[in-house]
Amino acid sequence: MSEKKGRILTGDRPTGKLHLGHYVGSLENRIKLSEEYETFIIIADVQALTTNFDEPEMLEKDVMQVTEDYLAAGIDPENVTICVQSMIPQIAELTVIYSMLVTVNQLERNPTVKAEAEQHNYEEMTYGFLGYPVSQAADITFCRADLVPVGEDQIPHLEQTRKIVRKFNNLYGEVFPEPEPRIGDFPRLIGLDGKAKMSKSLNNAIFLSDTRENVKNKVSQAVTDPARVRLDDPGHPEDCPVFEYHKAFNEEEVEEIRESCREAKIGCVACKERLAEKINQFLEPMRERRKKYKNNPDLIEEILYSGTKKARKEAEKTMEKVREVMEIDYF
Amino acid sequence: MSEKKGRILTGDRPTGKLHLGHYVGSLENRIKLSEEYETFIIIADVQALTTNFDEPEMLEKDVMQVTEDYLAAGIDPENVTICVQSMIPQIAELTVIYSMLVTVNQLERNPTVKAEAEQHNYEEMTYGFLGYPVSQAADITFCRADLVPVGEDQIPHLEQTRKIVRKFNNLYGEVFPEPEPRIGDFPRLIGLDGKAKMSKSLNNAIFLSDTRENVKNKVSQAVTDPARVRLDDPGHPEDCPVFEYHKAFNEEEVEEIRESCREAKIGCVACKERLAEKINQFLEPMRERRKKYKNNPDLIEEILYSGTKKARKEAEKTMEKVREVMEIDYF
Ligand code: SF4
Ligand code: SF4
Repeated sequence: MSEKKGRILTGDRPTGKLHLGHYVGSLENRIKLSEEYETFIIIADVQALTTNFDEPEMLEKDVMQVTEDYLAAGIDPENVTICVQSMIPQIAELTVIYSMLVTVNQLERNPTVKAEAEQHNYEEMTYGFLGYPVSQAADITFCRADLVPVGEDQIPHLEQTRKIVRKFNNLYGEVFPEPEPRIGDFPRLIGLDGKAKMSKSLNNAIFLSDTRENVKNKVSQAVTDPARVRLDDPGHPEDCPVFEYHKAFNEEEVEEIRESCREAKIGCVACKERLAEKINQFLEPMRERRKKYKNNPDLIEEILYSGTKKARKEAEKTMEKVREVMEIDYF
Repeated sequence: MSEKKGRILTGDRPTGKLHLGHYVGSLENRIKLSEEYETFIIIADVQALTTNFDEPEMLEKDVMQVTEDYLAAGIDPENVTICVQSMIPQIAELTVIYSMLVTVNQLERNPTVKAEAEQHNYEEMTYGFLGYPVSQAADITFCRADLVPVGEDQIPHLEQTRKIVRKFNNLYGEVFPEPEPRIGDFPRLIGLDGKAKMSKSLNNAIFLSDTRENVKNKVSQAVTDPARVRLDDPGHPEDCPVFEYHKAFNEEEVEEIRESCREAKIGCVACKERLAEKINQFLEPMRERRKKYKNNPDLIEEILYSGTKKARKEAEKTMEKVREVMEIDYF
């Protein structure tokens, strides 16, 4: 830990199985960063309740699922602290404290709050939902993170956290580093149906936990260049979702396939079979790792438990400092 | 405990020394109720930060002061659990959970939030201030209180708590009793200056901790019947603040004084001296009790510490049930 460059906080809402889009868009980057930085991954289950407060029974399954996916994807629990938000009461304490440092107006202007409220078609926003940026600030700062990997669209949220941290530090005393965004290049993986984004809810995703057969079937049904109707029509790889996947998962053959498609030397069926094979090769080590956990389901729980315990210890240290500077450390 | 009729939750923001108005308006009633009910008094220091977040150094002094005043007033720590809000993290956890069960609209319509925001002349309300009824619901329910002594003006606040409790119980399962208001008759003590209300900020208050001399001086400067200019003018006790105090603290002599004043048989100076003496008699047992704590300041801290510990134990029980019904008791 002491040799690492600083502390990173990332996280996810537990909304179900992770797919290739998650890997390409964030997991790969997290695994890389965790070699340089002490890394905490928080599973934001309380925030998941914000939108799903009426079906709590799903939550435990989703928390275990996302953890299994992390581990299968190659996140090393020796290297990365995976923890559960709802089991860290200090995050709630920080949320309550921060809620006094932010105005309602500031929150209502937050573009992500605005957008999400519209997207979910809430008639009336809950108080908790409005405070999503406040609770996110608590998530990020409970371990006094230095860096947060973010996409461009997440910058306003982090800006709110940075404002809260500055205000806290100015009012009470320096407790928190101002977390810097680590703006990465997070490629967005197109859906199998050619839609802009791979997503569980659009039913166009290949999950990290899919079997070889699943992958073959899904790829065989993927959308291709709509202008290529017959085998001897020349293809336009730049208009073909399948080709996008070759770019991401079949680097060594991508140029050959581009040419062959343009010259109608390869058919879409064969092209898809080659892709499915490459994706399966890519997923194979994940399947191997996953077996270990499938055969020993308590292992996931143990990893989550000890990660959460370690995170709570950090959170306690943070709250001790907070109480000290706020002078609420009465006894 | 098991012989008592139920559990009561009351509390105060720690805003400084308590005065006679607090005694008449609430402490007296609490002491009486604590004989029948298991009683928790919460010192809402986090809520005090809502309006005073920039002067935390005052808070510890105020927390100790209000506790000393409780004890001096005759609240028996054997009978009543006095606890500090900020030292009970489960209250923050409940606040975060409840924040998903209330809409922003509901909070903005809350009359007390409206009124307070106007009174404090906030240009921009903080998120925490808007959520005051949510955090109050957490204060009331952390110990699963059955009853809350309230004045008429506090009913809307309790109604919000009851709504949250109903929603929680319906969605997840019965954890909380729906706290009933115990609407008492809480007389409001007029100020020494004749203003409607005794209040520290109006500088018209007799504090429970005032010395004999303080009381004499303050009473001697109290406003009297403005129509009685000379000693031989007949007085109008019904227009005289001093007479209001005789009613509250000198029951046995009040009729005699009413007559004597009307017939100009008693002068205001003498009338005030008799009142000061009665108030001093009333405060005498408090001064005796206070000595014990002044001579041993650690005692207050010990009482607060053990009260808070006991409260935290109750709060843990509550959160265990909450986690269970919300199915976030992963491990
Ligand atoms: S050959 Fe491959 S790249 Fe060309 S259109 Fe068919 S699937 Fe797409
Ligand atoms: S005699 Fe007493 S009651 Fe009458 S006006 Fe004076 S102070 Fe008031």
